[in-house]
Amino acid sequence: MQEANITERGRATRQRIIEATGREILASGIGGTTLDTIRAATLTSKSQLFHYFPGGKAELVREVAVWEAGELLEAQKPHIDDLASWESWHAWRDALVDYYIGLGRWACPIGSMATQAAMTDPELARIITESMTNWRASLAAGVTRMQAAGKVQAGAAPQRIAVAILAALQGGLVLSQPEKASWPLEAAIDSALDVLHTAGQAG
Amino acid sequence: MQEANITERGRATRQRIIEATGREILASGIGGTTLDTIRAATLTSKSQLFHYFPGGKAELVREVAVWEAGELLEAQKPHIDDLASWESWHAWRDALVDYYIGLGRWACPIGSMATQAAMTDPELARIITESMTNWRASLAAGVTRMQAAGKVQAGAAPQRIAVAILAALQGGLVLSQPEKASWPLEAAIDSALDVLHTAGQAG
Repeated sequence: MQEANITERGRATRQRIIEATGREILASGIGGTTLDTIRAATLTSKSQLFHYFPGGKAELVREVAVWEAGELLEAQKPHIDDLASWESWHAWRDALVDYYIGLGRWACPIGSMATQAAMTDPELARIITESMTNWRASLAAGVTRMQAAGKVQAGAAPQRIAVAILAALQGGLVLSQPEKASWPLEAAIDSALDVLHTAGQAG
Repeated sequence: MQEANITERGRATRQRIIEATGREILASGIGGTTLDTIRAATLTSKSQLFHYFPGGKAELVREVAVWEAGELLEAQKPHIDDLASWESWHAWRDALVDYYIGLGRWACPIGSMATQAAMTDPELARIITESMTNWRASLAAGVTRMQAAGKVQAGAAPQRIAVAILAALQGGLVLSQPEKASWPLEAAIDSALDVLHTAGQAG
């Protein structure tokens, strides 16, 4: 009974450290995040940190990537699993804009880690690539469902459209973030969705 | 005469520090770049660094942004000043893909700073925003020239097309970088250029 409580509390502490590190990385980058700043932000000791993350900062940052990818996917549900109608695509688009801008993030936790991961940790780059690949696959599956429903022409390439939409989203954020304006993100993603609409009209 | 030599040498040292810091930022991010790592990479003393950059790291990073923006513009010349024909647009596209991928950067120095600048230094965010705005304006001017030449329909919105192309480029890099594959970048930018082509065909 008592042991179960300790395990429960331990799990909560571990999760608290992951979330605080995620905020730290979003604010200061992976390079600007140190075990010292994490200790200060979470009021934990060095030995506690290494108890939960024996691999130190590298392991912690990877856990942050896994957790952020899960949160990002959650924010896109249920639309991301549908995308079989225009309404669903636009609901998905609105949910993401709200996740990024409405909630004041102004950056994609996964996208901003992607540009830092490649140089710092191949294993982290692998986690980010897998997350991006799954994300793209969900969008491509949506394009395929639109084709099956006769709303997008059969000749359109789902993978190519998916990568263009995902890139528009990530690049729109890069443009929106420094000027704290949502319109570059919205224009970029709507322009990419227009490609899907055009593929629909031409079919 | 001797003073001119010293000034010349001083200018070269200052420039050497800026370029080394640019490489450091691309590899470790702004947060992971410290005056100590810069000193080690450039074999300069702390007093030398503060002689050239009295404002310390913040001033140095801003100078890097200004320099990188200039280099990036240079890499797009002469095409970026033309963009009045399809040949020119495709030459511009190829020059940029070569700059990012061919030269092994796998990241946009300005784009990757954009996602870090907003949180760390408002003045740096202003420099990045200005650079992005000028870049966008050059692309929009190209779209306008295509319209004047009758190659793109008059109803197309140059600013919107420009932001979509720039976002595709930045987002394509975000997707390309962690998996070290050029195809996401190429698919994203070609898909955005397709929008321009479609606007041409419809006109």
